[in-house]
Amino acid sequence: MADGLKMVTIGGGSSYTPELVEGLIQRYDTLPVRELWLVDVPEGEEKLTIVGNLAKRMVKKAGLPIKIHLTLNRREALTGADFVTTQFRVGQLAAREKDESIPLKYGVIGQETNGPGGLFKGLRTIPVILDICRDMVELCPDAWLINFTNPAGMVTEAVLRYSSIQKTVGLCNVPIGMKMNIAEMLNVDPERVRLDLAGLNHMVFGLNVYLDGEAITDTVLRLMGEKGDQFSMKNIAGLGWEPEFLQALGAIPCPYHRYYYKTREMLEEELEKYRSSGTTRAQVVHRLEQELFEVYQEESLDVKPKQLEERGGAYYSEAACRLIDSIYNDRRDIQTVNVRNNGAISGIPADSAVEVDCVITRDGPKPVTVGELPVAVFGLVQQIKSFERTAAKAAVTGDYSTALLAMTINPLVDSDETAKKILDDMLKAHRDHLPPFADTQKKTMA
Amino acid sequence: MADGLKMVTIGGGSSYTPELVEGLIQRYDTLPVRELWLVDVPEGEEKLTIVGNLAKRMVKKAGLPIKIHLTLNRREALTGADFVTTQFRVGQLAAREKDESIPLKYGVIGQETNGPGGLFKGLRTIPVILDICRDMVELCPDAWLINFTNPAGMVTEAVLRYSSIQKTVGLCNVPIGMKMNIAEMLNVDPERVRLDLAGLNHMVFGLNVYLDGEAITDTVLRLMGEKGDQFSMKNIAGLGWEPEFLQALGAIPCPYHRYYYKTREMLEEELEKYRSSGTTRAQVVHRLEQELFEVYQEESLDVKPKQLEERGGAYYSEAACRLIDSIYNDRRDIQTVNVRNNGAISGIPADSAVEVDCVITRDGPKPVTVGELPVAVFGLVQQIKSFERTAAKAAVTGDYSTALLAMTINPLVDSDETAKKILDDMLKAHRDHLPPFADTQKKTMA
Amino acid sequence: MADGLKMVTIGGGSSYTPELVEGLIQRYDTLPVRELWLVDVPEGEEKLTIVGNLAKRMVKKAGLPIKIHLTLNRREALTGADFVTTQFRVGQLAAREKDESIPLKYGVIGQETNGPGGLFKGLRTIPVILDICRDMVELCPDAWLINFTNPAGMVTEAVLRYSSIQKTVGLCNVPIGMKMNIAEMLNVDPERVRLDLAGLNHMVFGLNVYLDGEAITDTVLRLMGEKGDQFSMKNIAGLGWEPEFLQALGAIPCPYHRYYYKTREMLEEELEKYRSSGTTRAQVVHRLEQELFEVYQEESLDVKPKQLEERGGAYYSEAACRLIDSIYNDRRDIQTVNVRNNGAISGIPADSAVEVDCVITRDGPKPVTVGELPVAVFGLVQQIKSFERTAAKAAVTGDYSTALLAMTINPLVDSDETAKKILDDMLKAHRDHLPPFADTQKKTMA
Amino acid sequence: MADGLKMVTIGGGSSYTPELVEGLIQRYDTLPVRELWLVDVPEGEEKLTIVGNLAKRMVKKAGLPIKIHLTLNRREALTGADFVTTQFRVGQLAAREKDESIPLKYGVIGQETNGPGGLFKGLRTIPVILDICRDMVELCPDAWLINFTNPAGMVTEAVLRYSSIQKTVGLCNVPIGMKMNIAEMLNVDPERVRLDLAGLNHMVFGLNVYLDGEAITDTVLRLMGEKGDQFSMKNIAGLGWEPEFLQALGAIPCPYHRYYYKTREMLEEELEKYRSSGTTRAQVVHRLEQELFEVYQEESLDVKPKQLEERGGAYYSEAACRLIDSIYNDRRDIQTVNVRNNGAISGIPADSAVEVDCVITRDGPKPVTVGELPVAVFGLVQQIKSFERTAAKAAVTGDYSTALLAMTINPLVDSDETAKKILDDMLKAHRDHLPPFADTQKKTMA
Repeated sequence: MADGLKMVTIGGGSSYTPELVEGLIQRYDTLPVRELWLVDVPEGEEKLTIVGNLAKRMVKKAGLPIKIHLTLNRREALTGADFVTTQFRVGQLAAREKDESIPLKYGVIGQETNGPGGLFKGLRTIPVILDICRDMVELCPDAWLINFTNPAGMVTEAVLRYSSIQKTVGLCNVPIGMKMNIAEMLNVDPERVRLDLAGLNHMVFGLNVYLDGEAITDTVLRLMGEKGDQFSMKNIAGLGWEPEFLQALGAIPCPYHRYYYKTREMLEEELEKYRSSGTTRAQVVHRLEQELFEVYQEESLDVKPKQLEERGGAYYSEAACRLIDSIYNDRRDIQTVNVRNNGAISGIPADSAVEVDCVITRDGPKPVTVGELPVAVFGLVQQIKSFERTAAKAAVTGDYSTALLAMTINPLVDSDETAKKILDDMLKAHRDHLPPFADTQKKTMA
Repeated sequence: MADGLKMVTIGGGSSYTPELVEGLIQRYDTLPVRELWLVDVPEGEEKLTIVGNLAKRMVKKAGLPIKIHLTLNRREALTGADFVTTQFRVGQLAAREKDESIPLKYGVIGQETNGPGGLFKGLRTIPVILDICRDMVELCPDAWLINFTNPAGMVTEAVLRYSSIQKTVGLCNVPIGMKMNIAEMLNVDPERVRLDLAGLNHMVFGLNVYLDGEAITDTVLRLMGEKGDQFSMKNIAGLGWEPEFLQALGAIPCPYHRYYYKTREMLEEELEKYRSSGTTRAQVVHRLEQELFEVYQEESLDVKPKQLEERGGAYYSEAACRLIDSIYNDRRDIQTVNVRNNGAISGIPADSAVEVDCVITRDGPKPVTVGELPVAVFGLVQQIKSFERTAAKAAVTGDYSTALLAMTINPLVDSDETAKKILDDMLKAHRDHLPPFADTQKKTMA
Repeated sequence: MADGLKMVTIGGGSSYTPELVEGLIQRYDTLPVRELWLVDVPEGEEKLTIVGNLAKRMVKKAGLPIKIHLTLNRREALTGADFVTTQFRVGQLAAREKDESIPLKYGVIGQETNGPGGLFKGLRTIPVILDICRDMVELCPDAWLINFTNPAGMVTEAVLRYSSIQKTVGLCNVPIGMKMNIAEMLNVDPERVRLDLAGLNHMVFGLNVYLDGEAITDTVLRLMGEKGDQFSMKNIAGLGWEPEFLQALGAIPCPYHRYYYKTREMLEEELEKYRSSGTTRAQVVHRLEQELFEVYQEESLDVKPKQLEERGGAYYSEAACRLIDSIYNDRRDIQTVNVRNNGAISGIPADSAVEVDCVITRDGPKPVTVGELPVAVFGLVQQIKSFERTAAKAAVTGDYSTALLAMTINPLVDSDETAKKILDDMLKAHRDHLPPFADTQKKTMA
Repeated sequence: MADGLKMVTIGGGSSYTPELVEGLIQRYDTLPVRELWLVDVPEGEEKLTIVGNLAKRMVKKAGLPIKIHLTLNRREALTGADFVTTQFRVGQLAAREKDESIPLKYGVIGQETNGPGGLFKGLRTIPVILDICRDMVELCPDAWLINFTNPAGMVTEAVLRYSSIQKTVGLCNVPIGMKMNIAEMLNVDPERVRLDLAGLNHMVFGLNVYLDGEAITDTVLRLMGEKGDQFSMKNIAGLGWEPEFLQALGAIPCPYHRYYYKTREMLEEELEKYRSSGTTRAQVVHRLEQELFEVYQEESLDVKPKQLEERGGAYYSEAACRLIDSIYNDRRDIQTVNVRNNGAISGIPADSAVEVDCVITRDGPKPVTVGELPVAVFGLVQQIKSFERTAAKAAVTGDYSTALLAMTINPLVDSDETAKKILDDMLKAHRDHLPPFADTQKKTMA
């Protein structure tokens, strides 16, 4: 690291990359990045070129000596890296579209994070991530792996359990988003709000909220009961909550909790939208992305364009930059990330991934002890953790039965028979991106 | 205990009582019961008289000096008792009928153990049980409380957490039933089968099965996949299982697991039955009970009648007698009961109730260590435990919001809005048997 | 708190008070103390007056509107308090002298923190602390209790287990002292050093050391092996360590660990000193204190005098001020304090006190998760925790057998017979300050 | 196993073997042993022949078709084995003599189980055991390894952590001995006594005692206080206990606890004996063994001779036979053995070895849940567990520093300097039986 850091971004052609580059430029004084390698696969080469050229213009405009490399050669990029971030999407948006629409055919929400869609995203992503880990062990064993490919919780679980890379963190923008939403709801500067968060990825709860140091959790729960429909994310229908339910829950649900606590209404909403317009969230995102890349291509553009903030993934790259900065500088500030539990949340295995507030040190994030989660919350968290662990095992083994088990125990799937139908349909649809399953299927047939 | 035991049965007018009496008669040599007090409430006096007289005839026929007392005075009965068993039903079968039918109106399975129906059964039962506990502390502080009133897991949880009576055991006939079913499926004598069981009440899993000491878990899972429809209980539709799901699960589900792993099909089945015949399981049971009491009334009857075995609750009283016998005689044999976890199942609080294999000693049941449950199973178990704990708290506090929380987190209920509708409807329907809620409702209105 | 904080210091006549006052003066901008009540017992009235007058002169010199109250009326002082600090010593230094010298008569180190001396300090102190807690519940239920009366770990354990005051923190100067010592050994500014600490009070280990963010634990262990005799505290003989022992230990011992890992040499050292000079550490401190109070009395003195830093307890009051400031301002910085474990260190009960790095919030300190302590360290930590818990129970019950048990399991005491001799001798010597034991003894004799 | 079991006894030339053979003969009906292979090393060949011939005469007298094989070829013996028992002693009694006498030179008790002597016994034994495990993985992967080579707890810990053989049980005669002693003290038939045991090997506590099902723990503790000197084992001086200490302890200590709770008196006793007679326990045993082998050689002897019972290790082989019988027949009775904790004792890692009451099944022993040990007991148990784990690591790595660490944290060793002296002296004395250390020492010197 003597003369600056080597950073590698896998999935460098992603539309999020300009945010990352902006973050690195803003922090250059304390986070001296010498080289940024943007890596992608052949199918993504065009996007890589577009976004990479924008990155180069941005760095040039900033007058900084950060060298941008565009490459399809992952191993060359990884050699000697200090930080590796991953933001790729196996099968691109077309795959996400299937993740969301196929389950709907069987009356089940697709949900691309912790639902049936998330299972398939995991099945496609985990083998690739573990492959990257194997490369890292060989080429940059001391590097940190910062993952913000979804499902980030399942992926972190898989890396912790099935690879020897333990310097890994999973990132999500939900924690920052929740804080922003609360600030907006209270109509105050986000800096005045503090939020204690704990749970799993896309399954995190706000245990306490403070405004200028005063506890206001009950007030926030009351406000959410009154105007819950304003408290969501770009990609999630902002259905309102039953006020008494929130009050007894005693913790702030994240926007994704609607899928579990309002399953019936969310399903109706998604079916309605699907039937009427025939569009899924994936299709909306696809259109947004195309527009973004048209903007990126403009030669005159040399900063992050405003339009990127319209995209659902706001704060992702900001979160990544803040994290890397705090690790590199041993800042010991507190950020909410996905890491090894290590006892922080009672009753969850020490070696499982959780999403919790952590003190960020040179040795990585260290969770602030949570102790016992609220009783009513704990069961659902454990159910998703069971799902994540079973799904990760299915991804690693390519075993059909394990995948069926994961699908059946998912709280959005309402029977083993439905699970089997969805599974079979999706295995066929994603065949090209699931080589381990293709192999085991063949073996079974032989 | 010097000159024999004093036993008290609360809900003595139950149709199960003859089985209990038969068990005591058969064991008299090692379990010398001096007095059996059958206690009931005024509404149950007629049944108490019928069943009590049959009990007297049975004892006389056996030529044993067991004195049978029939009384409506619970405190007199409890004074100086050695063992207290509870098998009462607040609101009788009419209440159960509502527990099962009201949720169906909203497209939700009623399920009178761990479903919305079970929540209401708990809300009605727990205050009465805790009242009995208060009497016991005063009148028979050294007695054992053997509960087989459902929901037995939730009730045991409530006694452990909200009373000072710690000598308590919850009993269920599912464990014995599972063993019997497996023996039948294998076409072997049940004595040759051993089953390691762990989980929660009506949520217990067979972790291993042995035939003559040989492990045959995989064989049993395969057979269940092939002919699962034969492997159920009288009161649960025997829908078959997806073979690969069972194989990956790696543990024998109990008949009640169909409600959670086959929710869609079970709901369709129940709706179908309800629409076509308009009858719920409660109504079937009601008719069976009436027939039984007609038989009990025959003066010539002086043994347990065959017809009792047709009733769903087979083995209940047998289980109770075996348990009491092993405690009294410090037998150190193994029985599956509901007790304080104490670390037996990892990740469940030490002071929560679990249903596990226990060594039965003079000091009560001591769980055989389970360690970690299979990953895929653990999440659902935790979810039901969260539900049980929240439900127990609602029963004790009579708090509307807590009851709504319990209803919403129940895995059979698919949204907070549906939960509120079912809750409001059921609170009204059961008003007379929920005095704590009536009180808090009034307070809220005032 | 609207118009500034009310602070109460019990044992206000302590020689440490000027440090506390200085700390409050320095922080007035962010920690607006309106009133500081210095409370003491009649025997300490003279010292209270001397130190209290100095405090008044210091505040006047600083030109701040902090009102200093001197009182023997504890209940008046506590009424409406925001923060209560305790730094009293039941039986004064004369009692400490006995704590240290009596065990030596029987060939055992006295050790006034976690040794036989610490047991007696706990037996005298805990009933008084619990009495204060009872007053607080009544008079200032929302106040924080910041204790730096030793043995701080045992006292915190007792407050957590035997009182309803849960807003309590135990403070010690060992963590800061270790950091200072390491900085001195490395000859660097202490600000550049970071230390991860975990364990129990006076039994804390440095798990990692960083210099400017770089891990240097091994270097520090090597240096300690080479020149360990420089790495101690004012009151502990700086005997050197076996280098290979330190290397395999892999964690930085605190100065007090010499009593446990070098028992033989420490005992010889203490016996030698005792025989030759007849003086214990208590006597040295006594002389230092007299000199300090002479200085304090000088009317011209209106700042904290230099001589106070010579005293063993450096940094104590500084630590208290930093802690109070961070709680009041929700600073979320990291400090090492004694709090409820809550799962931070695996294998120690959630409701026991531990000394760990904590994030300091408005809700109090939240431990940074430690996970498993190094294997070799864990056993000794557990042994001291067993001792602390048994000692706390003895203090609360006044039970002779429990006190004998605590004495026997202390790692410095080498048999039940020796334990009994020391116990009997010390019970007699401290009779006046152990009313609970006097009572139970009388009962036993009657 | 179709036509009877193949059993292998490593250290077959031990003087205990006739007890084992007698046990197998008595149980032949339910435990049909086809072949018993007695394996030894060349140095033990003479003893192997003597004891093996006696075994053959015993089997012949019993008229049973058990084939006895005597061999120095361990791999041949292991091939296809069903049960492997180990009872060897690396370095024979001469090594034990050094284990006990060298520490005494430095004023420290040798203690060949959990003391400095036990450390060295572990360092010699564990590499051999792990070598046997490697052979078993290859030659009889489904066999059970029943170890009664001391230190059995440390050896079981090492097998569980450092080999893939998980079907392993450590056996000790202390549990049976405690029951016998209590029966003798009460002057009742041992069959009437039940004892709940939990802790570690040679560090086990009787948590409850029952006589005919009635709890009599307090009575037994009182009697032990009155006449504790009768309550010991052949090889441990029966020093009495302080009655109040026992009463507050609330649990029955095992005879070995005297080393930890009466260190001073035990040390004096051992030094006294050593100085006066110059004999250690090892030397006494050596003489007893010689006498036994003379008896064994008599051609007319064809049963287990009475004299064997005089030897300290009574009940060892009986315990082994009972255990094997219960595993083979899935008896589900309760025996006290050393196995993986799996959560049985709270606060001890799941994958560490503990000595607890277990239900013995075809799948091996399953611990009865203990929950939390009594507070005062827990600390010492953890300290010995830390020692065992550190010692096992030292044995596996052959690392000097780790061995020094283990020696220093042993509760019988009173400083790092003393530890180093004993370690260096013993490493030299046992050089021939510690090849891993010889290697690392050489490396360090190079």
